[in-house]
Amino acid sequence: MVNIYQSSRNNRGLSGVAQSEPAQPEIKTSVPGPKTKALLKDLSSLQQADSVQLFADYDKCFGNYFVDADGNTFLDAFTQISSIPIGYNHPELLKAFNEEHALRSLINRPALGVFPGSDWPQKLRSVLMEVAPSGLNGVATMMCGSCSNENAFKTVFMWYRKKERCGKIDFTEEEMTSCMDNRPPGAPKLSILSFKGAFHGRTFGALSTTRSKPIHKLDCPAFDWPVAPFPRYKYPLEENQRENDKEDERCLEQVADVIENYKKKANPVAGVIVEPIQSEGGDHEASPAFFQKLQKICNQNGVALIVDEVQTGCGPTGRMWCYQHFDLPSPPDVVTFSKKMLTGGFYFNVETKPSHPYRVFNTWMGDPGKLILLEKVLNVIKNEKLLENVNETGTVLKCGLHELEKEFPNLVNSVRGRGTFLAFNSGTTECRDKINADLKKNGVLGGVCGEFAIRLRPALVFRKKHAEIYLDILRKTLKAI
Amino acid sequence: MVNIYQSSRNNRGLSGVAQSEPAQPEIKTSVPGPKTKALLKDLSSLQQADSVQLFADYDKCFGNYFVDADGNTFLDAFTQISSIPIGYNHPELLKAFNEEHALRSLINRPALGVFPGSDWPQKLRSVLMEVAPSGLNGVATMMCGSCSNENAFKTVFMWYRKKERCGKIDFTEEEMTSCMDNRPPGAPKLSILSFKGAFHGRTFGALSTTRSKPIHKLDCPAFDWPVAPFPRYKYPLEENQRENDKEDERCLEQVADVIENYKKKANPVAGVIVEPIQSEGGDHEASPAFFQKLQKICNQNGVALIVDEVQTGCGPTGRMWCYQHFDLPSPPDVVTFSKKMLTGGFYFNVETKPSHPYRVFNTWMGDPGKLILLEKVLNVIKNEKLLENVNETGTVLKCGLHELEKEFPNLVNSVRGRGTFLAFNSGTTECRDKINADLKKNGVLGGVCGEFAIRLRPALVFRKKHAEIYLDILRKTLKAI
Repeated sequence: MVNIYQSSRNNRGLSGVAQSEPAQPEIKTSVPGPKTKALLKDLSSLQQADSVQLFADYDKCFGNYFVDADGNTFLDAFTQISSIPIGYNHPELLKAFNEEHALRSLINRPALGVFPGSDWPQKLRSVLMEVAPSGLNGVATMMCGSCSNENAFKTVFMWYRKKERCGKIDFTEEEMTSCMDNRPPGAPKLSILSFKGAFHGRTFGALSTTRSKPIHKLDCPAFDWPVAPFPRYKYPLEENQRENDKEDERCLEQVADVIENYKKKANPVAGVIVEPIQSEGGDHEASPAFFQKLQKICNQNGVALIVDEVQTGCGPTGRMWCYQHFDLPSPPDVVTFSKKMLTGGFYFNVETKPSHPYRVFNTWMGDPGKLILLEKVLNVIKNEKLLENVNETGTVLKCGLHELEKEFPNLVNSVRGRGTFLAFNSGTTECRDKINADLKKNGVLGGVCGEFAIRLRPALVFRKKHAEIYLDILRKTLKAI
Repeated sequence: MVNIYQSSRNNRGLSGVAQSEPAQPEIKTSVPGPKTKALLKDLSSLQQADSVQLFADYDKCFGNYFVDADGNTFLDAFTQISSIPIGYNHPELLKAFNEEHALRSLINRPALGVFPGSDWPQKLRSVLMEVAPSGLNGVATMMCGSCSNENAFKTVFMWYRKKERCGKIDFTEEEMTSCMDNRPPGAPKLSILSFKGAFHGRTFGALSTTRSKPIHKLDCPAFDWPVAPFPRYKYPLEENQRENDKEDERCLEQVADVIENYKKKANPVAGVIVEPIQSEGGDHEASPAFFQKLQKICNQNGVALIVDEVQTGCGPTGRMWCYQHFDLPSPPDVVTFSKKMLTGGFYFNVETKPSHPYRVFNTWMGDPGKLILLEKVLNVIKNEKLLENVNETGTVLKCGLHELEKEFPNLVNSVRGRGTFLAFNSGTTECRDKINADLKKNGVLGGVCGEFAIRLRPALVFRKKHAEIYLDILRKTLKAI
């Protein structure tokens, strides 16, 4: 496989300091170092910044390596909360705005719902529709994951109410008046079902479906929307199949019950939103059978199935969309995306588009500049066969993690995931947090999620050699605990 | 005043087709023309696109002139729903990413809440804090207007609950558990008061405060949040002062009543959100005295005042922020922005920042690439004295509109606004729509809002000569009706 970092030179003639990857991490100061501490103090005088871990020197970051303000070099297995698809300073991205038309598309940002550029329909086709989930022929662009989910909900509510009106697209006088006072029937009692442990964003609609951690939700009013349990499997999967199958059944029964209950309490479920792998909530996976049966329940109840691929989408599981691992008999009704896709948005069936304009709408409706970058990203994924790389690297990583699981049974368990979208648990939250903090001190950036998990979220250009470095440093870290 | 379009050349050596402004609009085809119609048909096969008016050739747009796919040239008095601050293809913006560091900041988009670039605190200071509303020392960046308002609401709810806890920042076990089920006390019954005719965005929290048109709200569940009337003045203002003062009092009494009522129904108002000039709702303005008294009511009731400057901010009223016209004795608690600011976000008092990290948070938290463009925009505003230009051009426009009001009393009334942020009404919605459609056919892009209004939303580089062309074409258009 061609190493993209050797084969390409930026033809813009940049005198960039970072033109190739370092051989390995290098930690020169305490972590966080003195410069990082000073910057954090400065930033904290302007905003709540306690979540900031490191300040980056983005001129020096390259490929899978992140360089901080103190000159420390980290192997990045977290990639900006899973949002850097092909590594830092990729030559193809540095070239993306060389072409004058691309630059003008970036700086003349239109209101895409009113005055899109003449190349916009073609761009949607050649970029977003080129990788569209099979069977979904419509797409809307948005700004971020939260607003992609919010607008997916709106689309689903409109579709649901249209069904209730038997396809009529006219609104009654009472609907028009009552909606202005936030009352039914115009602002109807309708709900979205989500799963315990789910994360779908932080704006008020999305937040009402997020169920991962109290800190995300405390003090924020929320809709009376229902929640159902998501499977919690025992590992290794092959030794616990019967028990895990039962767990699927337990969860699915409750989904059906909740849909029934919310129908009775006159707040019917219009849509179910689900992550193919619950990410922020703890990297909980569910079986293809679970998703097949979930879709069946949705179909039987006239409820839309929304698959949230904000974190799983764009390749990290070894397929473009994670749900493609599930062999669903028909596509989900809506698939939402953001992060590695660089633009937010959602795919849907264009026959279910809203009846009128200005219903799923906002000033910008996305950003053409992000589609220009995404086009380069998708080309690199294709040309460099990065989905194959994800599968190959993922195998190395997973095997390595299984070995560590045997070697350190008190520190590592429940290795799981697909592609390089992997995770393992530690016995306690404290222990998990210590492993992750020590990893960082040893030169590896990783993420935590849920109560006990460390998650791997490398870029799609994370190769076998990076996996080996990751595993070496993890072993060293575990040994020292 | 220096004409920026003559004085500067793009030093990037672009061979751009558009390097200067045309002298006037030029319409060559029917509007919409054949190419636009074909593109619309194409786009409509992918999404609900009935709101699209024209497809643009962004390579050919320049300054105040918009060129469509059919080669028609329009004078743009709407500027992408008021979101283009210094005109199309401004040379300074074309240069913005020439510098390698700027380009790397654009393509290595970080999770700003976790791994910001080392220059981020300084960028916030030198760009956003440089134009911060006096007395507000904190800022958070966001992606768009809706999510700026949503996160302002979250900040206000957290501040309100902290007051209720007498400053304690710990949460009870009951709060932690109940919030996960979307129930009080963790997900409390708290509300945001907004005004009849207000527009604050379209995600579910923002949408619950939007009260401009049913089409924005129909079929979307909404929070039980209260609404109060916003003044509807009689014009000319100087002849109707007594009546308009009474209108202020009527509205303010209801604000106080609503706050009292929602306290009684155990859904207290934590914040009031208001536009300095209601924009989408019909360009309704209110007097400085109204805003002063509104702030007083908020203070007396321990309610935060959120001023939504998404459409009015960044200069179009002749001051950086429109509320600066109101002589408030103290700053608003929160000021939100987006559109012409290119990045979303909000200013607040940093002492009221959330108690813990990850509460006002998301993956991207804005976009450094937009701050790079905004920095150029703010420099141009300063160097070219564009606020002065807005006031000068605004005077020409407003005088001209007053003349047309006398000339065509059946077609034009209630001329109003500040700077170039102006509007006038027509007698009926049909007549208003015809004027706007005919203006377009005659080469001028304008916007409509509310029931009867045509709004002017030119860029800050709209000069006297453009005002004269606008008025000439408007006169010609009105004559022909």
